[in-house]
Amino acid sequence: MTMKSPDAEIISVGTELLLGHVTNTDARDVSALLAEIGVNVRYHTVVGDDPERLRACAEIAKRRAEVIITTGGLGPTCDDLTRQTLAECFGLPLVRDEETERGLYEYIGTGRGLTPNTRRQALLPAGCTVFRNRWGTAPGCAFEAEGRHVLMLPGPPKECVPMFAECALPYLRRLSDARIVSRTVCIFGLGESAVDDIFADEMLRMQNPAMAPYARECDCLLKITARADSEAAAEALIAPVEARVKERLGDAVYGVDLSCLEEAVMALLKERKLSFAAAESCTGGDVARRFTELPGASAFFKGGVVSYVNEIKEALLGVDGAVLAEKTAVSREVAAAMAEGARGRFHTDMAVSVTGLAGPDGDGVHEVGTVFIGLAVEGRTFVRETHMGAFRTRSFIRRMAGNHAFDMMRRWLCGMEIA
Amino acid sequence: MTMKSPDAEIISVGTELLLGHVTNTDARDVSALLAEIGVNVRYHTVVGDDPERLRACAEIAKRRAEVIITTGGLGPTCDDLTRQTLAECFGLPLVRDEETERGLYEYIGTGRGLTPNTRRQALLPAGCTVFRNRWGTAPGCAFEAEGRHVLMLPGPPKECVPMFAECALPYLRRLSDARIVSRTVCIFGLGESAVDDIFADEMLRMQNPAMAPYARECDCLLKITARADSEAAAEALIAPVEARVKERLGDAVYGVDLSCLEEAVMALLKERKLSFAAAESCTGGDVARRFTELPGASAFFKGGVVSYVNEIKEALLGVDGAVLAEKTAVSREVAAAMAEGARGRFHTDMAVSVTGLAGPDGDGVHEVGTVFIGLAVEGRTFVRETHMGAFRTRSFIRRMAGNHAFDMMRRWLCGMEIA
Repeated sequence: MTMKSPDAEIISVGTELLLGHVTNTDARDVSALLAEIGVNVRYHTVVGDDPERLRACAEIAKRRAEVIITTGGLGPTCDDLTRQTLAECFGLPLVRDEETERGLYEYIGTGRGLTPNTRRQALLPAGCTVFRNRWGTAPGCAFEAEGRHVLMLPGPPKECVPMFAECALPYLRRLSDARIVSRTVCIFGLGESAVDDIFADEMLRMQNPAMAPYARECDCLLKITARADSEAAAEALIAPVEARVKERLGDAVYGVDLSCLEEAVMALLKERKLSFAAAESCTGGDVARRFTELPGASAFFKGGVVSYVNEIKEALLGVDGAVLAEKTAVSREVAAAMAEGARGRFHTDMAVSVTGLAGPDGDGVHEVGTVFIGLAVEGRTFVRETHMGAFRTRSFIRRMAGNHAFDMMRRWLCGMEIA
Repeated sequence: MTMKSPDAEIISVGTELLLGHVTNTDARDVSALLAEIGVNVRYHTVVGDDPERLRACAEIAKRRAEVIITTGGLGPTCDDLTRQTLAECFGLPLVRDEETERGLYEYIGTGRGLTPNTRRQALLPAGCTVFRNRWGTAPGCAFEAEGRHVLMLPGPPKECVPMFAECALPYLRRLSDARIVSRTVCIFGLGESAVDDIFADEMLRMQNPAMAPYARECDCLLKITARADSEAAAEALIAPVEARVKERLGDAVYGVDLSCLEEAVMALLKERKLSFAAAESCTGGDVARRFTELPGASAFFKGGVVSYVNEIKEALLGVDGAVLAEKTAVSREVAAAMAEGARGRFHTDMAVSVTGLAGPDGDGVHEVGTVFIGLAVEGRTFVRETHMGAFRTRSFIRRMAGNHAFDMMRRWLCGMEIA
């Protein structure tokens, strides 16, 4: 059976998933791999180690998917019932697979006998394709019945994902001709709903490529996905849409397929061979932490000062005590002095600063969410004033303030307007 | 409707989940919270942003669950269809909720108008209980119809999980007579499998209270859960088990029901009225960031220096250049000098330092994962040497190094042995 972009359902079996003890990374990772070969995953289902409920889920999947993939419930314990339940559901007997049983002997070690439970793992649906398990004991398998393809994989991610990539993907690739490619446009300064307003009509009309916005905590993504016979053809479908999006959103686009703003900043610093430092008050080291999360950060980032109290702003960053007394720490003047102080002390090309109120407590003067972000470069200092709103969480305010710092650096490095 | 342990299904809506772009942590976290109040989660379903398929999934859930919880698809964009689809499925009209709309105005800011998309978020099923969203824009809600309880929550985990805990749990708690109480013993310095080995036999025998270990990235939890007619009765079941666990694990227990080690440190600093500072190299500000994530940190934390390059270790922390040259930055001596330097410059009671190799690149001398952590107090400096292994990720090494710094502070503040 060859299908144009078959519909698939992933059924993950395990009570531990329903108790919230374990995250269903198998469904995520198998889905990402299926997307690459043009299989449309339409549903994920999670069900406990209960043969009746699993049977009912398999019956539902049979009606709505052409490819059914199970993860989990193939192990040696008495609550591992996936093989038996799925075989019954498709009217297939279980038969002993001799090669699998030999493999189990080898895996467990020749010195020890196999328990009846271990041997159960060698019982497989009649006529199936066996997926040998090089990463654990329970084999996987695939069979075709009633016009459906059923694939069963072990639950532990360290067995499931490599077995899927190595055994199941080649099996499924024969079923579909399509290739799927995605590009993600990364946006700061426009929210998800603003981006959606701009492209809503277009997105509704679009089929291939398709486009959808994704909100993140402090920035926003626009994902363009195309399906074609080859990767090159899919990329050719994406290119004009990506160009149009970039033109329409202008400065707000900080990159494509990046994981964060600081990644864009690092690429620009590399290009220009420049260094920077950070002076942080309310972000408490988060700007430094975020940038140094990137491998290779030390080539561009010399360090920072977390000046969480005023005396440290004076002593380590040289902020004038009189200015601190008159303007308070939450001010344009102090943000500027902190950035300039850090640039001087760290001998860097640029320095950013953040000072403000992340809450939950206020200072009696400013509203929580008032943050000043400074950027000092040779001969010039910029300050951006933000009011994020007192209802924002401490962690949102800190992350957004960091994004503003990286955004100001990016804009200066690209020669864009900053404030 | 009051139910003894109702059956629940969680339906997560979002094509990004089916493409494998996003992990379904909402279903996991909501499930864990539901388990605590005695609701049996029987199924998780994931479906894309497609009203017909979502409708079909809701019809299936209606037949097999008494509590249906949706996550996602409540946002402002045109593919956010959960509200409308679930309301239709239960025959309820959508009506404009004025308080929600006012809240949206406040959230977006008074200076700007609401787009039609944003306003759609204020359309809610007639007669529902509204869950205000203090963490984002889209409100959640709950209604009872056809003998089922339907709860809708936003998709972003930072909105979904707190809203579930704060709004949905009290709503659901009324449905069940059983009271479930949990206490979580927080452990650093013993891994999940070590804890499991100690208590394995006991845990297998235990029914009520039940006990289970949970591994986190860099520490470990042991959760004791009891079910009874009242909270007091459940607590009485837990108390002797908790006491036994604490006695058995000793120093490794850093607290009960805490979210992190730094919380334990903050409580001790408060008790002793002491202050501290941080000097960080490979953690790049993460120690400062983590402590200042706690509201009220400024009473105990004066600040820190991120000395990502050697010249800054000399200039801002007074580390001797000769020592740096001879011992390299990754050494016991430099960790000690950094901590002492920070304590002197910040005029604090204590100071911690971290210097080491977080990878992925090495320095040609030390193995990645080699980290020295220092603690300077009046008249004494301690250094802990750790070798986490080159196979560890950068983010693991950084987080674990921070945990060691907080653990050393905690031990000193409690009068325990440190190295």
